[in-house]
Amino acid sequence: MIIGKIGKGKAKDYDKYKILLKNVAKKVNVAEGERAIEDILRVIYKHQPISTKRIAQLTKLPLPIVAKVRSILERERILRRDKGAILTEEGLEFVEKYLKFKYKKSLRCPTCNGRGIVLDEFFEEILYKVKPWFNKRPEVNTLLDQSFATPETSVYRAALMCEKGDLEGKRIIFIGDDDLTSLPVALTNFPEEVCVVDIDERLLKLIEKFNKAENLNIKVVKHDLRDELPEELRGRFDVFNTDPPYTINGLKLFLSRGIESLGSEGIAYLSYSHKPIDEWIKIQKAITDMNFVISELIPNFNYYEGSEIIGNTTFIARLIGKDLKPILGDTKNIYTGLVKPTIRYYKCLKCGKIYKLLNERIENLKCSCGGKKFRMIKREKLK
Amino acid sequence: MIIGKIGKGKAKDYDKYKILLKNVAKKVNVAEGERAIEDILRVIYKHQPISTKRIAQLTKLPLPIVAKVRSILERERILRRDKGAILTEEGLEFVEKYLKFKYKKSLRCPTCNGRGIVLDEFFEEILYKVKPWFNKRPEVNTLLDQSFATPETSVYRAALMCEKGDLEGKRIIFIGDDDLTSLPVALTNFPEEVCVVDIDERLLKLIEKFNKAENLNIKVVKHDLRDELPEELRGRFDVFNTDPPYTINGLKLFLSRGIESLGSEGIAYLSYSHKPIDEWIKIQKAITDMNFVISELIPNFNYYEGSEIIGNTTFIARLIGKDLKPILGDTKNIYTGLVKPTIRYYKCLKCGKIYKLLNERIENLKCSCGGKKFRMIKREKLK
Repeated sequence: MIIGKIGKGKAKDYDKYKILLKNVAKKVNVAEGERAIEDILRVIYKHQPISTKRIAQLTKLPLPIVAKVRSILERERILRRDKGAILTEEGLEFVEKYLKFKYKKSLRCPTCNGRGIVLDEFFEEILYKVKPWFNKRPEVNTLLDQSFATPETSVYRAALMCEKGDLEGKRIIFIGDDDLTSLPVALTNFPEEVCVVDIDERLLKLIEKFNKAENLNIKVVKHDLRDELPEELRGRFDVFNTDPPYTINGLKLFLSRGIESLGSEGIAYLSYSHKPIDEWIKIQKAITDMNFVISELIPNFNYYEGSEIIGNTTFIARLIGKDLKPILGDTKNIYTGLVKPTIRYYKCLKCGKIYKLLNERIENLKCSCGGKKFRMIKREKLK
Repeated sequence: MIIGKIGKGKAKDYDKYKILLKNVAKKVNVAEGERAIEDILRVIYKHQPISTKRIAQLTKLPLPIVAKVRSILERERILRRDKGAILTEEGLEFVEKYLKFKYKKSLRCPTCNGRGIVLDEFFEEILYKVKPWFNKRPEVNTLLDQSFATPETSVYRAALMCEKGDLEGKRIIFIGDDDLTSLPVALTNFPEEVCVVDIDERLLKLIEKFNKAENLNIKVVKHDLRDELPEELRGRFDVFNTDPPYTINGLKLFLSRGIESLGSEGIAYLSYSHKPIDEWIKIQKAITDMNFVISELIPNFNYYEGSEIIGNTTFIARLIGKDLKPILGDTKNIYTGLVKPTIRYYKCLKCGKIYKLLNERIENLKCSCGGKKFRMIKREKLK
């Protein structure tokens, strides 16, 4: 009997763990299956006590999934709470004897945090200069799937582009720029041209103000990317940068508009959510069909302010395109709110009253007590 | 006239540079076109004086291409030689005024050299232990496209697998292992099982010796991967690791055998040459068709001993597979020597005599003077 040979525990125990792992994966219905549950347990093993948000960041799994797994495993007495998630004695036995975890240390590079590049003095100075402007950003418009990258993220993107030779002497366009990456990019004074296309006038105005204050030459164009790029922006850029809505239609649309801006060849920087494997394979297929090669893909490169739902971190990929062809999907349903209608619950930070919003903009909400600041406390997808 | 406005030089000069760039790209016939020439110039601008080999590493272009570009640009008085490639005064004007280069510093992380992970004490100790074994490797068999990774490279691979949760408690198979990555992997004692499949008995014997000396449990299987995996190795591994021959047929074959070892899902570590974009798009398509997603791709991760032809560095990608399906190409012509017959010229290091080899093994060569050490001095592809 082979089962009797595994580890030193009783065979019965291991069967129990095996079933537990399977059941949890089934209950939360995650594409990665048992591997996702294992990843959550590994991150807890290495970093306990650890918050749900940080687990989501490190596993690249959506926060609601992590929260659900965590509460199931608490019920099963595998986890407990003490300033974060902690393995119980039984939990420790589970992961060490059944899952065979052994190593608690992280090997992620402490200098670059796994990004592979660093900011030197020149880019640190740029970060210092752009930071105040990031604080001036308007409230996010969740209907447009806006979620603002941290200023560090945008400056790291500029540094990555610099390192790869995609700044100096280049014509660069931003296919949407709610992350204000155009600011550090333009501030280097390396590109020949910097152009921003976005639908949100509030952002464009902020960029123009910065442009004037720093005496730069960023061109801003108000445009709904669901429509073709204006003639004068087509086929004349070397590089585009985009962080599209995290739907496959959104990705196809934004990449296709980017391709319009490049013409038949050029470079793309794509920031995108760590998707479940079933979705990610479709996305990889779309990218390949457009004739983009993935020359580099750095997980957890981008951090966002407050967008807890995507675990607050996304990857960046540098794509090289040749004989490019745009491939549009459904250009109407590009935002997650429209694809998956969602109810969000917000709590007024002043009086505690709770509001229920269905695809409405939190930025338009005002509490009956006069409060204007809210925190999202729950999120529900409509069937 | 727009041309008169560019920079401060005369329009005529810039036309000259534009034509020069185009002509060089055409002469060396590189898939990336002018961008490749620009990349070579940028690397020289940042690192001069710099050797041809180092340029090849940093640009990820094949050494013969770099050497050819370098000698053309020397003839055009853009470059000169002084302990490496250096820009002439005119060259400097070319890159700064026409290509608009401005930034000489590198932003690559100095701690991890862009790999994103570091070795801690535990893995440094493993490196120390395996190093002598790497020196015992037999001569490379170029007919099998062997080229040996440095011991550091193999230990970094093990560390990467550890960091991603692909070592502890996992069943791991090596689809070919001329890089001896199984040594550091097994030495961690983290995996449940380590198995190596290779055609080269010399390597398998070395692995078995190590296995015995370190009291490990590596299973070695002599097998020609052109044939299906033996029944007992199919559908029972969690992770495979491969550094296949750098032909599309070789890649398809090795990945397909890897899929046989996993079954319908699992993780793959693929090390592969930085290919010209035309070839890389085909490879990305094959990977996608097999249902692997690229969850991470780190350029310049792997360094090799002496394989100057691939600029001595390749990328590593972590692939996640679900509903995997093997896709075989032509399983006979998998080695580069057979796909692109190549004449190599070797110089005896003792007497200087030159030998011409067509797909023969340098390791069998012995000079008439008795010398056994040779250096490759030239390489020619047969039409």
